[in-house]
Amino acid sequence: MATSTTKTGQPLDRPVLDSMLRRRMFYTPAFEVYGGVSGLYDYGPPGCSLQANIIETWRKHFVLEEDMLEVDCTMLTPHEVLKTSGHVEKFADWMCKDPKTGEIFRADHLVEEVLESRLKGDKEARGQKVEIDEEKEAKRKKKAKDIKALKLDDSVVKEYEEILAKIDNYDGGELGLLITKYNITNPTTGGNLEPPVAFNLMFQTSIGPSSNLAGYLRPETAQGQFLTFQKLLDFNQQSMPFASACIGKSFRNEISPRAGLLRVREFLMAEIEHYVDPEGGKKHPRFDEVADVKLVLLDRKVQLSGSTNTTEMTIGEAVKSGTVDSETLGYFIARIHLFLLRLGTDPKKMRFRQHMANEMAHYAADCWDAELLTSYGWIECVGCADRSAYDLTVHTRKTGAPLFVRETRNEPLKIEEWQVDIDKKKFGPRFKKEGKTVEAAIEALDQEIREKLSLDLEKNGKIELEVPGTETGKVAIDKDLIKIEKRTRTEHTREYTPNVIEPAFGIGRILYSLMEHVYWSREGAEERGVLSFPPPIAPTKVLLVPLSGGHPDLKPLVKRLSQKLRRLGISNRVDDSGASIGKRYSRNDELGTPLGITVDFQSVHDNSYTLRDRDSTKQVRSDEDTICRAIQSLIEGQKTWADVQKELPEFTQQELD
Amino acid sequence: MATSTTKTGQPLDRPVLDSMLRRRMFYTPAFEVYGGVSGLYDYGPPGCSLQANIIETWRKHFVLEEDMLEVDCTMLTPHEVLKTSGHVEKFADWMCKDPKTGEIFRADHLVEEVLESRLKGDKEARGQKVEIDEEKEAKRKKKAKDIKALKLDDSVVKEYEEILAKIDNYDGGELGLLITKYNITNPTTGGNLEPPVAFNLMFQTSIGPSSNLAGYLRPETAQGQFLTFQKLLDFNQQSMPFASACIGKSFRNEISPRAGLLRVREFLMAEIEHYVDPEGGKKHPRFDEVADVKLVLLDRKVQLSGSTNTTEMTIGEAVKSGTVDSETLGYFIARIHLFLLRLGTDPKKMRFRQHMANEMAHYAADCWDAELLTSYGWIECVGCADRSAYDLTVHTRKTGAPLFVRETRNEPLKIEEWQVDIDKKKFGPRFKKEGKTVEAAIEALDQEIREKLSLDLEKNGKIELEVPGTETGKVAIDKDLIKIEKRTRTEHTREYTPNVIEPAFGIGRILYSLMEHVYWSREGAEERGVLSFPPPIAPTKVLLVPLSGGHPDLKPLVKRLSQKLRRLGISNRVDDSGASIGKRYSRNDELGTPLGITVDFQSVHDNSYTLRDRDSTKQVRSDEDTICRAIQSLIEGQKTWADVQKELPEFTQQELD
Repeated sequence: MATSTTKTGQPLDRPVLDSMLRRRMFYTPAFEVYGGVSGLYDYGPPGCSLQANIIETWRKHFVLEEDMLEVDCTMLTPHEVLKTSGHVEKFADWMCKDPKTGEIFRADHLVEEVLESRLKGDKEARGQKVEIDEEKEAKRKKKAKDIKALKLDDSVVKEYEEILAKIDNYDGGELGLLITKYNITNPTTGGNLEPPVAFNLMFQTSIGPSSNLAGYLRPETAQGQFLTFQKLLDFNQQSMPFASACIGKSFRNEISPRAGLLRVREFLMAEIEHYVDPEGGKKHPRFDEVADVKLVLLDRKVQLSGSTNTTEMTIGEAVKSGTVDSETLGYFIARIHLFLLRLGTDPKKMRFRQHMANEMAHYAADCWDAELLTSYGWIECVGCADRSAYDLTVHTRKTGAPLFVRETRNEPLKIEEWQVDIDKKKFGPRFKKEGKTVEAAIEALDQEIREKLSLDLEKNGKIELEVPGTETGKVAIDKDLIKIEKRTRTEHTREYTPNVIEPAFGIGRILYSLMEHVYWSREGAEERGVLSFPPPIAPTKVLLVPLSGGHPDLKPLVKRLSQKLRRLGISNRVDDSGASIGKRYSRNDELGTPLGITVDFQSVHDNSYTLRDRDSTKQVRSDEDTICRAIQSLIEGQKTWADVQKELPEFTQQELD
Repeated sequence: MATSTTKTGQPLDRPVLDSMLRRRMFYTPAFEVYGGVSGLYDYGPPGCSLQANIIETWRKHFVLEEDMLEVDCTMLTPHEVLKTSGHVEKFADWMCKDPKTGEIFRADHLVEEVLESRLKGDKEARGQKVEIDEEKEAKRKKKAKDIKALKLDDSVVKEYEEILAKIDNYDGGELGLLITKYNITNPTTGGNLEPPVAFNLMFQTSIGPSSNLAGYLRPETAQGQFLTFQKLLDFNQQSMPFASACIGKSFRNEISPRAGLLRVREFLMAEIEHYVDPEGGKKHPRFDEVADVKLVLLDRKVQLSGSTNTTEMTIGEAVKSGTVDSETLGYFIARIHLFLLRLGTDPKKMRFRQHMANEMAHYAADCWDAELLTSYGWIECVGCADRSAYDLTVHTRKTGAPLFVRETRNEPLKIEEWQVDIDKKKFGPRFKKEGKTVEAAIEALDQEIREKLSLDLEKNGKIELEVPGTETGKVAIDKDLIKIEKRTRTEHTREYTPNVIEPAFGIGRILYSLMEHVYWSREGAEERGVLSFPPPIAPTKVLLVPLSGGHPDLKPLVKRLSQKLRRLGISNRVDDSGASIGKRYSRNDELGTPLGITVDFQSVHDNSYTLRDRDSTKQVRSDEDTICRAIQSLIEGQKTWADVQKELPEFTQQELD
């Protein structure tokens, strides 16, 4: 794995970035004055504003642009719903306890960690180069530097590698056997571990005063959306395809969260459930609009071959070649790509990785993750899964609610089939109280058997049937009681359960990865960090700096400008501290504020102001209205700084460091 | 209580409105296909969009306009935090169980309900008019119509009335005594009830795999905000006053929620914590801007006198007269008023009610609720409390974190005080191992005692002190060991814990009340409901209707218009169903869509369109660009329909019902 880099290609020093992000309050550990709770973070003002801007962009890019039906479902979810969806049973990790120390390990991570560390020790002993995967490193209690150089038998190396390749595939019992067989112990103390037990990752609570309604905090927004399917279809006047969308917090009671904002117990998600008719290859009407979008793909086959070499191709080619399963899935993959670019992520640090068969959810037909490269490695930030008809089907089966589409066929469907007629007048007297049972057994016969029986009837003048629940368990029916004929039936309506294409965005992961992508530091001043958010995404748009701190002549101008920008909907902050202009700008470089206005004594005379660009530190000067217009067009993304620089006179004094 | 009315003053039929709101999917009971969970609702597309517009308006009106520091804190909150804040102990209701039926009653509501019902029975027996309080009626299991006309003794009536006046004041034991004394039973079955037990209203869960970190879903966003105080003060460069703000879900495990969207278990809040220096009367620098805002007030004194007569006065007068405690509290009350008006609530159905002493939270210095009149009665939608220094103080005391302000005094403070000097050289030999204890006892003496002792010293040449922990419990100290003098000390910094003014908005309650306020129906067509949201608040801004359903000549125009509006950030929906124009418009009146564009065959020829106003059903016609500009200025609130009607030619054909 390559070392991660800043926006300008320098090595990224994560502790330095991290301390800057905390100092500027992009985020802060929650409840820190109480010692904190791992996996819980608060966003401070810039983080909160950044998050709001990402969400607003998401709403415009998806909900508004695609006319999606946004819903707001509750987080509290009753047990029954998550039992049906499979989460009560399957949304769990296996954990092992060390009975001596009380430490708890996630079993698959532990096996992975220990075997990998042994393989590394083996490589070292064989004098081979050891690569360090920083992502896994961060999760690990025992660091790679503690690895013992110990050569393994070739056969053992092979066994370990095979186990690691399918590590997501083992259940608790199998993990337990691996732990025993390979003598895996507490990496710190060497102590023996108890066998793995399932730990459900949902936060449980009880709803109402009588404690008998168990509930959970939702692990995804999807289930709430599925349950509104029927009403949304009505709302959409029965028109398919359509999509619902939901933005809200979801929860995951991680066994041992580390890796900062990337693995948290409470996180903001934005999920889309796009309902599509499974017939006709899941085409998408707007696929042509994105067919030429070029993507970096890492497909399943390449991964299975043990490689991580990516391929660049258009989504049009990917769908045509079958690499991506359908147009609809491909359409959303391309739209996700465009969304991430709009936020300012680095296209060189973005790829779409296909899930391998053993890591896909049990219901999924195909799944691609948008991954962003960070100092923790490649991070899954958006999942784009074809959930097939799984969820709607299980909820319908459980509740009887018609979570499907019923539509009039353009042309009635003619179906040739074997139909059975019973002569009811003779049937009753013949079979007496067994009549109903026999009748039901006949109704349940499938087409193949009906065809065979029709031949029997013709040949023998009767048929013989096994009918459990009758006295002898068998009945014979004569041809005067029954007729079996091939006929044509006409179906005017069609019922089908739509398939679901689900793009699911982890907003917190995108937010963190974005901060790494736009981070750099000025040449020759490595301690001066800059966050180059695109203006529409930046937390605050404009910094207002009176040249001379709180000078009474400048104060009213600053106040007026600030109010004017506010009225234009442009967030701004005033820094009238006594620090030098350079210091004040550098503070705001760290906050990622793209523009700065300097108010000086010339401003008092002629109402002209200096506008500074964060990235180039270049400045232009003009009158108040022109400056405000320039700001607005930059914020709305209509102009770039290069445009503004061409139009307005440059200003070269006064950048005093 | 007056019967509630529609926007146009007609009686409001809640079941009719409610069925419309559900049909149009403003909201829907959550998990309905699973039978639902009381107190949990989902918002469908129009409700969700309405909520987003309310939030956006809130952000502009408060966060942006007042330069507040928005934070996003977690909902999961560890036990310790809520223990310190008092929620673990006090955020509870008392409940009684009927052991036979298993029914659970909220004790105070039950006592209130039964005594009120008896008082009504008494009135009926005395031939007096019985007023029905619809809000309480809705909560009640036994309806008023079941009341028995039974005359009570005058003394009993007086007792009941006194109990009801202070019903919020009883604890569980007292409620239990009332239940026994007045023979209060299950209103439906008459069965005896178990004594009241406290039921904490927080949802509990456990964080992490080892089950030893108890946590709750937060009951308010406030605590998370308080814990970030110190970091926010740093972020704000130590400048006071400032405010933090947080928008997010909070939770309350109601014993038995009814009353629809007004009493739910999971709700969106928007809370502001404004930190102010308690010295100098809690002035607000921008109070002048709102001093003339007229408000309808219902103060504490009036309520205690048993009346609900409101007074109209400016907030300037209210603060001056001491009705409202401080400028800062008054400033926010006025700003809340302006915010609610901006959303479109009816000023005639809005009042500010002051909390009475016995209903205020234990920490509050003063509290006013913005109440909106609905068919459930007056509903608390915004609370505006002065929480004093309570929260910051208890968290500081518990954790030692400096949740206070330390500032350099403009002028050093000179303090005259009695200081004690000890001659340490002689003190040690004299008191030996008791020296430290005696010294500490002297240090702890307050000013008054020091003054008295200085006189003793002068008069008797020694002082006598009781010092617990010494051998005799008493010591005498001669004047050669000790000196007590009045001197002046100079203090250069000042430390203080800010007071908190907290405007807390229940977004769901505002949303529901607003829907009642803007609801009306067309004269002569009572079944045709209209929701007259102001254009900036309305869920969808524009309906696009091709005159003739899906006619191929009109389709491309509709598509182009829709995309154009979308690019301008204006949400719109197309209705190209086969229904009549009138039917399609009436569907969208119910959705509260303020504007409609009709695309007809004339549009194909000259690119002109008809623009329809929801409220007046008047139409104007012009070319595409003019129509789009008109829409934009209406949506942004720069123009009214009356302005547009003056500027553009009226169109009178084609409103076909």
